[in-house]
Amino acid sequence: MHVVLPDGKQLELPMGATALDAASAIGPRLAQDALAATANGELVDLMTPLPDGASITLITKKNPGDAAPLFRHSLGHVMSQAVGEYYRAKGYTDDRIKRGVGPSIENGWYQDFDLPEPLREEDLPEIEKIMREILSRNLAFTRREVSKADSLAQFPHDPYKQELIQGLPDDEPITFYQQGDYVDLCRGPHFPSTGRLPGAFKLMSTSGAYWRGNEKNPILQRVYGVAFASQKELDEYLHQLEEAKRRDHRKLGRELELFTIDPLVGKGLPLWLPNGTVLREELAGFLKEHQFRRGYQGVITPNIGNLELYKTSGHYPYYADGQFNPIEVDEEQYMLKPMNCPHHVRIYASKPRSYRDLPVRLAEFGTVYRYEQSGELNGLTRVRGFTQDDAHLFCRPDQLKKEFLDVLDLTVLVLKTFGMNDVRFRVGTRDPESDKYVGDEANWELAERQIIEAVDEVGLPYTIEPGDAAFYGPKLDFVVKDVLGREWQLGTIQVDYNLPERFDISYVGEDGQDHRPIMIHRAPFGSLERFVGILIEHYAGDFPLWLAPRQVMIIPIADRHNEYAEQLRSELHTAGLRAEVDDSSNRMQAKVRTAELSKIPVMLIVGDKEQEARQVSVRERSVGGHKERKGVAFNDLRAELLERYRTRI
Amino acid sequence: MHVVLPDGKQLELPMGATALDAASAIGPRLAQDALAATANGELVDLMTPLPDGASITLITKKNPGDAAPLFRHSLGHVMSQAVGEYYRAKGYTDDRIKRGVGPSIENGWYQDFDLPEPLREEDLPEIEKIMREILSRNLAFTRREVSKADSLAQFPHDPYKQELIQGLPDDEPITFYQQGDYVDLCRGPHFPSTGRLPGAFKLMSTSGAYWRGNEKNPILQRVYGVAFASQKELDEYLHQLEEAKRRDHRKLGRELELFTIDPLVGKGLPLWLPNGTVLREELAGFLKEHQFRRGYQGVITPNIGNLELYKTSGHYPYYADGQFNPIEVDEEQYMLKPMNCPHHVRIYASKPRSYRDLPVRLAEFGTVYRYEQSGELNGLTRVRGFTQDDAHLFCRPDQLKKEFLDVLDLTVLVLKTFGMNDVRFRVGTRDPESDKYVGDEANWELAERQIIEAVDEVGLPYTIEPGDAAFYGPKLDFVVKDVLGREWQLGTIQVDYNLPERFDISYVGEDGQDHRPIMIHRAPFGSLERFVGILIEHYAGDFPLWLAPRQVMIIPIADRHNEYAEQLRSELHTAGLRAEVDDSSNRMQAKVRTAELSKIPVMLIVGDKEQEARQVSVRERSVGGHKERKGVAFNDLRAELLERYRTRI
Repeated sequence: MHVVLPDGKQLELPMGATALDAASAIGPRLAQDALAATANGELVDLMTPLPDGASITLITKKNPGDAAPLFRHSLGHVMSQAVGEYYRAKGYTDDRIKRGVGPSIENGWYQDFDLPEPLREEDLPEIEKIMREILSRNLAFTRREVSKADSLAQFPHDPYKQELIQGLPDDEPITFYQQGDYVDLCRGPHFPSTGRLPGAFKLMSTSGAYWRGNEKNPILQRVYGVAFASQKELDEYLHQLEEAKRRDHRKLGRELELFTIDPLVGKGLPLWLPNGTVLREELAGFLKEHQFRRGYQGVITPNIGNLELYKTSGHYPYYADGQFNPIEVDEEQYMLKPMNCPHHVRIYASKPRSYRDLPVRLAEFGTVYRYEQSGELNGLTRVRGFTQDDAHLFCRPDQLKKEFLDVLDLTVLVLKTFGMNDVRFRVGTRDPESDKYVGDEANWELAERQIIEAVDEVGLPYTIEPGDAAFYGPKLDFVVKDVLGREWQLGTIQVDYNLPERFDISYVGEDGQDHRPIMIHRAPFGSLERFVGILIEHYAGDFPLWLAPRQVMIIPIADRHNEYAEQLRSELHTAGLRAEVDDSSNRMQAKVRTAELSKIPVMLIVGDKEQEARQVSVRERSVGGHKERKGVAFNDLRAELLERYRTRI
Repeated sequence: MHVVLPDGKQLELPMGATALDAASAIGPRLAQDALAATANGELVDLMTPLPDGASITLITKKNPGDAAPLFRHSLGHVMSQAVGEYYRAKGYTDDRIKRGVGPSIENGWYQDFDLPEPLREEDLPEIEKIMREILSRNLAFTRREVSKADSLAQFPHDPYKQELIQGLPDDEPITFYQQGDYVDLCRGPHFPSTGRLPGAFKLMSTSGAYWRGNEKNPILQRVYGVAFASQKELDEYLHQLEEAKRRDHRKLGRELELFTIDPLVGKGLPLWLPNGTVLREELAGFLKEHQFRRGYQGVITPNIGNLELYKTSGHYPYYADGQFNPIEVDEEQYMLKPMNCPHHVRIYASKPRSYRDLPVRLAEFGTVYRYEQSGELNGLTRVRGFTQDDAHLFCRPDQLKKEFLDVLDLTVLVLKTFGMNDVRFRVGTRDPESDKYVGDEANWELAERQIIEAVDEVGLPYTIEPGDAAFYGPKLDFVVKDVLGREWQLGTIQVDYNLPERFDISYVGEDGQDHRPIMIHRAPFGSLERFVGILIEHYAGDFPLWLAPRQVMIIPIADRHNEYAEQLRSELHTAGLRAEVDDSSNRMQAKVRTAELSKIPVMLIVGDKEQEARQVSVRERSVGGHKERKGVAFNDLRAELLERYRTRI
């Protein structure tokens, strides 16, 4: 047989040769350095026979490629061995340790166990220690093929392995991997030896997991680990994880009293606390201001609608799974509205429209309700009731592109206001295989083409995602990357030729004839709940002045400054700023700490000197530290804060 | 027998004597002037025997008392006679005219007919003419008592009369009244003759009415008339009627494009059109500003809630009739929220509260849904979904009175802002007979007393209305009188000791112990829907500048001024004012008329002179006429309008 090397050269090898054999054939040094290989683009280990004619590359420390899934998997075996040794040391015989599956996953691996006593979080460092010890033993991973009968005989006491082996096909070889005295049923691939595995790993946590994911089966204990090629990468990962935890909007939402979810009120139905309400209303106010400038008109529609409305729109029955059950009212049925569009279409239809009246841009912060499985719910980002910053634009064909571009422009402006500069678009088009779409072919093609032309014009990166369209039309989604590099899908713009058809709406053209308008659906934030959830994580709760629910904390140094502090607070409050006084009996430094923990962006410290001169000492939170200014005239500061508030800085 | 005169004197009369006999006994002049009388406080006519010992007063033109129900009823008989003569003149025999009931009602009367051909609106003046002719005949009304058999014989061809007579008791005399050749079954009382009836009457309309109000019976034609003692009163009434029609919020709501109700969306579920949305948001913004100043905190809660929440609050099952049916979600039931209170209580309960944190004032423009019979629905004033300007104040007992007074103060301020200066209060207390109330006796008494103390302090008029309390506590309602003298119940304030109990909420007192806060529910507008409905009628659509959905119309005199007009519009719009340009091809006077019909408060007319000097000619709508100013510098005008907008004038 032969294999093909990256430079195109062919290497002749005996049948059944492995990547290690190939490395040895090239040179002894390479055989020593090799960690793994790829064959025809797939990761393989050094122990597995290569297919005849395979194109291979060898992975070494210097030429690492992506060996991560492989060493993560091998570390999983090492952990499994270490757990065995840990329980052996505790006096348990090996047959008491039973094992479910143990794959590599993103950033690491997990392994399921059925243990004589459960592992506690505090046992994990101990297991890690044994793992490092196994790495230092530099045990070779060996691979062997065995018969099904021998396989079954290998794990007489382990019902999970028995079940797994019984499930394997009879006519394919079953492989075992072994390092030291630890043997596991495994398809591989693995590193050559434990000594070659990176030490940059960490055991993270344990959790319960049903055997084979079926809740009728016993619960096994799942142990998670993460591993990277270098300590630097691991540190970065752990830092990012901690950052994500620190920024978790559910945690910050609780600490900063932004929202709460109360089971007595209902799952997935956030209650906006006073601080969160301020934040949300600032967002709405900001968008309303820009919408007013761009000629949008506000409307308000009810949260329910007659079922007939949704039959006309097609949301029912098409969308029924994502909706709450209907409510019986007299002889009619009503639904919690899952979308605002049908209501807005009916507003469009409430009077005759002429070509001169178009475009009509109807905007509503419309609260909609959709059914989600309770297991899917998550803080503000996955809820059962949410408020869309929704608008529907009704325009003539000759206005479509201009309107679409204006919506694009507004959305990018909105995102950039929040420092979300890393924006890309996803153009959702039809899945050509599916028949779930309503409306005719020509309209779909026209709409898809117009969206692509518009994003081309804007010049931001985009991808085309077939199958991501709404059932009534193609759409453009905005994906932003946050400071942690996580991507979030935010706003959406959709072109719709179908609802106008279904509701038979029209305008009288210059020719005196009825014409069909085109609809654009758009929501720059997407939903206020989701957007605020993301914003909390984006800012880690450190909101800029205009968004901060608590903007100014005035800190009197001693009780005798309380009155002056209260006077300043009252003046700021009258000017429309959210200001408070900390008149507790705490010392000044403690008050500053409390305000910092509450992430209040501006602290005004007032003592004798300040009081005398109607001044304040200003201490500001800002990314990466604090600005401090002493002896600032209060009137100047108030004007400055108001200006920053007004201009949303 | 004897009767007692107003001055206490007794008058001896023969048994069966009538009021006319009494008048004759006093003097012939009085007998001639008498129109009717009261006996023991009840209206009687001059033909009916008086009870022995009755205290009587005689009604004359000079001493009219309230004879209106009596002459209205008599005019009903005159109309019925006139209708008979009208059909007789058309060639129908009398037996073709059948009659249902014909009572006097507020301001007039009605009479039901079964006619050989229906009366049309345009026949009514003809009938009125015959009525006036009958008045000029001065026919005496005579009364006689007849047996049931004779009664039945009187109306052989009228199945309605037959049915009415059959339904009368056998042992009481049946009375007939007659004027001229017209006889009717009637209990009276009546005026002495048609010549004495006031000519200040008018036939208003006809409608269909089921015989005896039962929809299984035939439909009769009901003819309505109104009558007053003097032409002046009739004119005033007709004017007020026309005013009410002109101000009808459903009519103005359509004409000014404020809202629409669309059966496809749902009955009683208004869609707020762009103009109405502006109005509503101005109102909300106005109240939010005042609430911010007074230390309220905004919250936002979902429109649905778990049924368990309403079981805890007591709204379910107590309030079930006024609610929509529950929605099944997984294994739980959810309700459209009928009230915001339970949600707000749960927000209060979401963290520990200290006596220092109180009062907590949670405010929400919360949209609630309540079931109303479809026949009860009316425009914006009776709907199935509405948004309350709701707030719940949680306070300590020692804070209750101050908080209550502050709420009272805010509410009166709100109403006065809209020129609703004629305000009175209704204190709703328990109905001592009913057992529908929750909570203990002592709390109820305390709350009722505190409300009364507070309104006493404010000094506006109030009444105490037993039975008008909410099931959970006493309340104070605001009743305002509009320009037409109609009374509207608007905002409400309620003191509640019960929900805090039911939800077991508390605060830690200065003593370190748990204490129960008291809740105040309040809504100065009541509901935005209802308030806007009333406001439309109050202003007849002529909203002040700050509320007007369309504030400024710029009218270019000729096409060559369009560009200048557009420039001004853009500058006003950028400043936040709602400005438009009428660049239609109409002439200036037509544009002014259009703007006036649209009730736009400010018109800016621009021609050559204005354009040259960056000026405008200002024409303003205001109650009772127009203000006109020529050659106003545009920048000054813009500043003036902005200041008026900001200060809500």
